[in-house]
Amino acid sequence: LAAALELDRLRVVLVSTRNPLNIGAAARALSNFGFSRLRVVNPFEPSFREARSAVGAASLLREAEQFPSVAEAVADCSLVVGTSALRNRDPEQPVRRLEEGARLIRRRMASGTVALLFGSEKLGLSNEDLSHCHWLMRIPTQEAHGSMNLGQAVAVSLYALIRDRRPAALAVEKSYARSGDVDRLDSLLVKILEASGYVKEPASAVSRNKMRRLVRRLQLSREDIPVWLGMLRQIAWKLNVPE
Amino acid sequence: LAAALELDRLRVVLVSTRNPLNIGAAARALSNFGFSRLRVVNPFEPSFREARSAVGAASLLREAEQFPSVAEAVADCSLVVGTSALRNRDPEQPVRRLEEGARLIRRRMASGTVALLFGSEKLGLSNEDLSHCHWLMRIPTQEAHGSMNLGQAVAVSLYALIRDRRPAALAVEKSYARSGDVDRLDSLLVKILEASGYVKEPASAVSRNKMRRLVRRLQLSREDIPVWLGMLRQIAWKLNVPE
Repeated sequence: LAAALELDRLRVVLVSTRNPLNIGAAARALSNFGFSRLRVVNPFEPSFREARSAVGAASLLREAEQFPSVAEAVADCSLVVGTSALRNRDPEQPVRRLEEGARLIRRRMASGTVALLFGSEKLGLSNEDLSHCHWLMRIPTQEAHGSMNLGQAVAVSLYALIRDRRPAALAVEKSYARSGDVDRLDSLLVKILEASGYVKEPASAVSRNKMRRLVRRLQLSREDIPVWLGMLRQIAWKLNVPE
Repeated sequence: LAAALELDRLRVVLVSTRNPLNIGAAARALSNFGFSRLRVVNPFEPSFREARSAVGAASLLREAEQFPSVAEAVADCSLVVGTSALRNRDPEQPVRRLEEGARLIRRRMASGTVALLFGSEKLGLSNEDLSHCHWLMRIPTQEAHGSMNLGQAVAVSLYALIRDRRPAALAVEKSYARSGDVDRLDSLLVKILEASGYVKEPASAVSRNKMRRLVRRLQLSREDIPVWLGMLRQIAWKLNVPE
């Protein structure tokens, strides 16, 4: 619950957006990453609330707040950050890379509300819009092609905000097979290779060592050992390998 | 130049994409973050190359490579990673969160080529598609609304890859086998298992997918492939498996 309240403190503000599909896509990204407060300033299409691109986020889009000016849209926020690709522009405010900016925004969200502004598809934020911002944030795109799709820029920015919120828990470490089980596997393999004529029977110590290394390089998991043993046993049986 | 070459080692593979605008949006994201190699498998609209959403990335989209199957699209890659929202699915492969996955992919790109797969808008990647993957990567979206827009998922994943790019590690990474060579190995193994009665002949799609995953978990090195192939060929010959 505490976490939910905290994400509730971000307002994503879309300024003068032309394509309503981009507003819908932004709504979807908010919902994907657990945010809920979308604001729009002077959208080009007043009917943006029906944008079909807000898959799974229709109610979030319906509840978006609309404002006639940036000033009003950010009035209740204690930190206002503008996103910018910074083409042809010598910004007046400090510019922070997304990684550092996200860290500062997160910290501020612990105590107050933050507005994150995105400008129109063609022109970005105007100097007037930017004048409401404390600082600017730049997604580290290539200089030669810095201009992102609006919905994608919103998604990347929000991902950066939630990125290190929790310890990475999903990764499951593989549980490696015990050496004794691996031994049974490579002994059986050697017998099969003898029976099939791949190595001379009985296999030399050199061959055996080579097989042992080969099988160990596989770094088999505990779970896979019985599967491989089962397959090899069947092959061994078919080749009349003695137990 | 070195950095450019490295990003060149990622292939973004879009599988069975329905909406060509999403292919264009993916192309734009590649270009924004400095990547260049886009591949498509069975796109729903053959005319996807004209997608207007590829703003600033028209040539990248024109040069996208098209393949009839996932196997062919990833044949030259030594690491294959599937992206998944993991709804209603109990994955067979290890799942890594985007942050950790991105780190592993970057490390691997220092020495070889990597494929990053994205499934169709509605259904994601099929079990057959996933069976070509070494592991899966999950963008940390909300459980209640995990499904992202395709273009946004691509953008977020690529951002995570370039996020803390440091000069490629000096340590020489194990050189992993290319997917096409691994395919030859698991096809031969299936034939042997059919001949020995471990699986019914012909092996079902489920058995084949299972074998494909099992063999991929071995993460075979390039050097070991001919050794294993040689052993399997000898066993196959002994069991009278046809070529």
